[in-house]
Amino acid sequence: MNCEILSVGTELLLGNTVNTDAADLSDRLAALGVNVFWHTVVGDNPGRLAQAVSIARSRADLIVTTGGLGPTYDDLTKNVLAECFGRKLELHPEEAAFLKAWFAENTSTKYTDNNLQQAYLPERCTVFHNDWGTAPGCAFAEGGVHVIMLPGPPRECLPMFDACAAPYIKGLSADVIFSHQIKVFGIGESAVESMLRAEMERMQNPTLATYAKFGEVMLRVTAKAADEAAAEEMCRPVTDRVLAALGDKVYGVDLPSLESLALELMRQKGLTLSAAESLTGGLIGQRFTALPGASAVFKGGAVTYCDEVKAALLGIDPALIAEKGAVSRQVAAAMALGVRKAVGADVGLSATGLAGPDGDGVHPVGTVFVGLADADTVLVRELHLGTGRERVRQLAASHTFDMLRRYLQGLDVVPEEYAPAE
Amino acid sequence: MNCEILSVGTELLLGNTVNTDAADLSDRLAALGVNVFWHTVVGDNPGRLAQAVSIARSRADLIVTTGGLGPTYDDLTKNVLAECFGRKLELHPEEAAFLKAWFAENTSTKYTDNNLQQAYLPERCTVFHNDWGTAPGCAFAEGGVHVIMLPGPPRECLPMFDACAAPYIKGLSADVIFSHQIKVFGIGESAVESMLRAEMERMQNPTLATYAKFGEVMLRVTAKAADEAAAEEMCRPVTDRVLAALGDKVYGVDLPSLESLALELMRQKGLTLSAAESLTGGLIGQRFTALPGASAVFKGGAVTYCDEVKAALLGIDPALIAEKGAVSRQVAAAMALGVRKAVGADVGLSATGLAGPDGDGVHPVGTVFVGLADADTVLVRELHLGTGRERVRQLAASHTFDMLRRYLQGLDVVPEEYAPAE
Repeated sequence: MNCEILSVGTELLLGNTVNTDAADLSDRLAALGVNVFWHTVVGDNPGRLAQAVSIARSRADLIVTTGGLGPTYDDLTKNVLAECFGRKLELHPEEAAFLKAWFAENTSTKYTDNNLQQAYLPERCTVFHNDWGTAPGCAFAEGGVHVIMLPGPPRECLPMFDACAAPYIKGLSADVIFSHQIKVFGIGESAVESMLRAEMERMQNPTLATYAKFGEVMLRVTAKAADEAAAEEMCRPVTDRVLAALGDKVYGVDLPSLESLALELMRQKGLTLSAAESLTGGLIGQRFTALPGASAVFKGGAVTYCDEVKAALLGIDPALIAEKGAVSRQVAAAMALGVRKAVGADVGLSATGLAGPDGDGVHPVGTVFVGLADADTVLVRELHLGTGRERVRQLAASHTFDMLRRYLQGLDVVPEEYAPAE
Repeated sequence: MNCEILSVGTELLLGNTVNTDAADLSDRLAALGVNVFWHTVVGDNPGRLAQAVSIARSRADLIVTTGGLGPTYDDLTKNVLAECFGRKLELHPEEAAFLKAWFAENTSTKYTDNNLQQAYLPERCTVFHNDWGTAPGCAFAEGGVHVIMLPGPPRECLPMFDACAAPYIKGLSADVIFSHQIKVFGIGESAVESMLRAEMERMQNPTLATYAKFGEVMLRVTAKAADEAAAEEMCRPVTDRVLAALGDKVYGVDLPSLESLALELMRQKGLTLSAAESLTGGLIGQRFTALPGASAVFKGGAVTYCDEVKAALLGIDPALIAEKGAVSRQVAAAMALGVRKAVGADVGLSATGLAGPDGDGVHPVGTVFVGLADADTVLVRELHLGTGRERVRQLAASHTFDMLRRYLQGLDVVPEEYAPAE
């Protein structure tokens, strides 16, 4: 099935809003075996939207729209789509009742009659009730084309896709698509591809594809079969071969991130965490505490951006910094040990290095030391991460989480490639 | 001039990469007075790309492409665009010489003959030399349509737009476009619009438009005139009226962010900064230290995610926390005072509150106290930020930076609306 995502909203064309919906829906559609061949964005203009719909229906089997379902005069997606496909809009009494009840409860938002406009949907459609906002979505088929309309705000669009649109799309095909995401850290995309290229090119069903982002590689294994069990069975040997080829560089299958794995493992073991951050400036703490439930594990930490603060908050001997330099194996170790003790946590993480753009005259930009300490040991990885201030900081934080998950999984925390001789 | 942005890359259709280029270019094109009416994304497929070009040239005066200029077999943008517009590709000797020199210098990247493909550009085009990577961009006009081709990676695409494409576009019109961005914090977009709507609707040249994001509102004043001085002169009375209407909610004109203003003001005054973070978990430090040059001002801070750490790192009396609760005006004050002292900085910022999804049984999710302390005083804002974990955390961090800039500008740090009676 070939799909076009048609996003409606002038805010996207003004650059005020980034079209993350298109990316997030594409990812989900790919996992359902749908080929997304086009993204189109048009503004809140009926003529240009109608033209875009006419182009989309000429080339796609599935049109997924986002945005323009709300109560204001510039929310015109339903009207234009219904018109293009020759359907009337009709009031859906259940949605109207829901809207009235919603506004009775949420008195801070003023009800106007415009809000009822949201309960008008194309005749003979499947209604997608909105449990995350007010405007319902819907789906219908006409002339061999399936149309799915979703709200624009990501916190409504994505859960509605998962709860309503994904089952609708699965129901369109007798086949079931099943996929696994294999998550890899510590090896580049081109290295992964060169190890697996022969296999990837040979495969038709299941397929294997790689995606890379901020130092991580994700491999997606996808199979199509008559039922989920059969599709999963087809994925298994491919997944097994990838796991065998990449070994413990694979940190998980179908896991969201390094830090979410680390949080889960820490929780299981009843351990607490702390972090001492120089070049990352708070990023390690921020990424870890972005996870709901982090407070059960993360006790706190210190952002020691200047050397005096390394002494004041972590008790690091200024003579050590004077001798070895703030960007050194020894200071990374002292930071991890120091924060663990200062915070009273089981494990301390640390990062010190040069994010750039300026160097320190000693090390090149991108030189980073990350450390991990527990009651018995302290381990440090030496990294050379290249340039790009934000990139270097993100990679440094990812390395601390990778050290932590390897520590918790009983693997070498500092594999050979990260531990050059002293 | 009506523009279509045509982004080429299968990675965008797979959801692996978010199309930030389209948003960032749209923003820049709007500032040049260009109407962006369409964004289109197609994969690395010559047939679908040629079809998209055919549609774009039928409706736009300017087509800006991103991506597909590199050296690999799937980089086909130039070939397809040249073919569609009936131009040959020819070797540009200067670009070829540059590429050979580049690869001689960057020996870590292997040179192959494919790389020379990047030096082939459409005949009779304006070459945009790439100072940020290897693949050059270009521009040409054919049949009343202007075509601009830019590389895909944002760190090449955006500087090339600014350095090469923007001057090219300016040269297409006898008129000059001039715009100011007025940056506002602490008032909602709808409130701004209702104050200025009559004015906004009446205006033709200059124009005034609003954009909102994460609690901030940006107003863009744009004028078109025969030269820049005249256009700037036309903007002035509008800018003045907006500044008069919004008062000190305006934190700057043509400034990137609250934190960059705070950094600049701190640097001018020779002051140093520290931060004590609970619900933000490191975000205040991370945002501030994302700015190059932050190390001249930011000394460090403490992430005190659990109550013991508030005592251990900041010396806060556990009895105070027991009595008032960790989410309280008093603890926010004690955190700001404590971090200032612990780190030895002139100013301490603090944030404590509930980001959700879980509450504490006392306050609703979104209740946040942010504080600022110097040698003489400590001030606290009480905030009710609603839901959405990441949203609440970002808004809380923005409020600490807003307090800081108001403190440095000699304004009320806690205006009436943020300082409910005790």
